[in-house]
Amino acid sequence: MKFCSRCGGPLSFRVPPGDHLPRHICDACGTIHYQNPRIVAGCIPEWEGRVLLCRRAIEPRRGHWTLPAGFMENGESTTEAAMRETLEEANARVEIIDLYTLYSLPHISQVYLIFRARMLDEAFSAGHESLDVALFTEAEIPWGDLAFPTVHESLRHFFADRRAGRFQTRTGTIGAAPWQRPAADDA
Amino acid sequence: MKFCSRCGGPLSFRVPPGDHLPRHICDACGTIHYQNPRIVAGCIPEWEGRVLLCRRAIEPRRGHWTLPAGFMENGESTTEAAMRETLEEANARVEIIDLYTLYSLPHISQVYLIFRARMLDEAFSAGHESLDVALFTEAEIPWGDLAFPTVHESLRHFFADRRAGRFQTRTGTIGAAPWQRPAADDA
Ligand SMILES: [Zn+2]
Ligand SMILES: [Zn+2]
Repeated sequence: MKFCSRCGGPLSFRVPPGDHLPRHICDACGTIHYQNPRIVAGCIPEWEGRVLLCRRAIEPRRGHWTLPAGFMENGESTTEAAMRETLEEANARVEIIDLYTLYSLPHISQVYLIFRARMLDEAFSAGHESLDVALFTEAEIPWGDLAFPTVHESLRHFFADRRAGRFQTRTGTIGAAPWQRPAADDA
Repeated sequence: MKFCSRCGGPLSFRVPPGDHLPRHICDACGTIHYQNPRIVAGCIPEWEGRVLLCRRAIEPRRGHWTLPAGFMENGESTTEAAMRETLEEANARVEIIDLYTLYSLPHISQVYLIFRARMLDEAFSAGHESLDVALFTEAEIPWGDLAFPTVHESLRHFFADRRAGRFQTRTGTIGAAPWQRPAADDA
């Protein structure tokens, strides 16, 4: 961030009066340009006990399997974002059951919100960001080939909770460590 | 948003190829400037059955009572954000118990995350964004004088759940309607 998006003037990076962190400040018009974490919203779409996963057609982690999820847009709710992403990536229509996982990824300033969801019918196909879309039983999940630690942790909890017969919202922080060993706090 | 924050060039507002929404696009350097919802993180700080509220020293809703909460920063987790805001606004130190409410406010592109929290000691005082900070029993809550519908709904559920002896994460959407009649979906 080098120029003011309001007036086009040059920005400096310093702590504004009364603040505690450096910000991008326009010396011409005085605007302070804050930067904030982004929300990734998605879901675990379930159909007759199986879970719908998408194989990514785009980087990062092209070719790996993921839950349908993506950046929340202005003007929508978190559940609308999750349903929209599922439609875009998997051409699947779902209804949202409940919030399931909330993960902070401070090293990339993202917050993941994954909901449990019910597919409205068995229809699905690869959207333009997916190479493939398929339903998996727990035994069929490609655990070694998942795209992100948030997906791994959400699915691991999901199947454990389903076996236990009780779902509870899970929250935690996932660090920059290798994704095979996520530092999720099980809350 | 009128100028490119990367190169200072003029922006146009149009749908990029393969996208479905108009974006601010720099015709000089090609950068697409996305805008995304912001997260407000806060908590319900509890001390011996009472709840800590702050009377706002700043607009919007100056003079009205709120839970300690504010915009999440890059590089922190949602719980770190909630604890930091509680320290800044109420000079109170808390430990986070669990996520309690998740509200989408699509009309202002915000997502509220309110956690239940336990004060570590009885110390608190007004931070520079607060006129006053005080502990309230359920009967003492200034229901007619709360700052935001998210605060009203979070406290209403909190006391109802506490009486029922079971807290569950609450999610919903709160619209632009007058805050006295929030359209929260109780999930
Ligand atoms: Zn400026
Ligand atoms: Zn540019």
